Amino acid sequence: MAIALPLTEDTANCCATVTGGVLDVAQAERIAHVFKALGDPTRVRLLSLVAAGPDGEACICDLTAPVGLSQPTVSHHMSKLVDAGLITREQRGRWAYFRVVPEALESSAQALLTK
Amino acid sequence: MAIALPLTEDTANCCATVTGGVLDVAQAERIAHVFKALGDPTRVRLLSLVAAGPDGEACICDLTAPVGLSQPTVSHHMSKLVDAGLITREQRGRWAYFRVVPEALESSAQALLTK
Repeated sequence: MAIALPLTEDTANCCATVTGGVLDVAQAERIAHVFKALGDPTRVRLLSLVAAGPDGEACICDLTAPVGLSQPTVSHHMSKLVDAGLITREQRGRWAYFRVVPEALESSAQALLTK
Repeated sequence: MAIALPLTEDTANCCATVTGGVLDVAQAERIAHVFKALGDPTRVRLLSLVAAGPDGEACICDLTAPVGLSQPTVSHHMSKLVDAGLITREQRGRWAYFRVVPEALESSAQALLTK
């Protein structure tokens, strides 16, 4: 006999995919929130710069020149990526350092894959 | 001896990933364009409705009620998804029918996966 285990919210939503059935509003909002952060070319480039940094991290001080934008503008883009859970931010003295969250990229990718 | 084959633009860009090296502006724009289309909860729900339709397709006439929006508004969202290459549109008499493009979802997912 199969035992029905109670699903936590995390478990229930971890694997919602766009082709795995009709999504409810909450599921769609969660998925769209991450993709909205990725829906800007500058943020996509910044994410690739962080991932390509030494030891997989990058200082805000090294991100402004490659994208040709001011530090406040880059900080704004980075906060959207942090808010979406795609990168983490760590303050070290004067500078903020960023690191990609591979699990977040993986689960976003999974949301698009057909099971 | 390895033979260097000329890369077509398609070949060169098919596999750009956000963690596979620093992306140039054109690559980032291509990736962000698709994710921008997915960065809206209504569009994510519409995509899931199309994928869950009979035979994997859906008529515009069956999409308005589930999302509670007018047909012009749904049409506008659908055109963003078509423009991003995520779905196709086929006119049959009075109604437009939509179908998911699995290859487009797959390649968008691949752009997020660590190789």
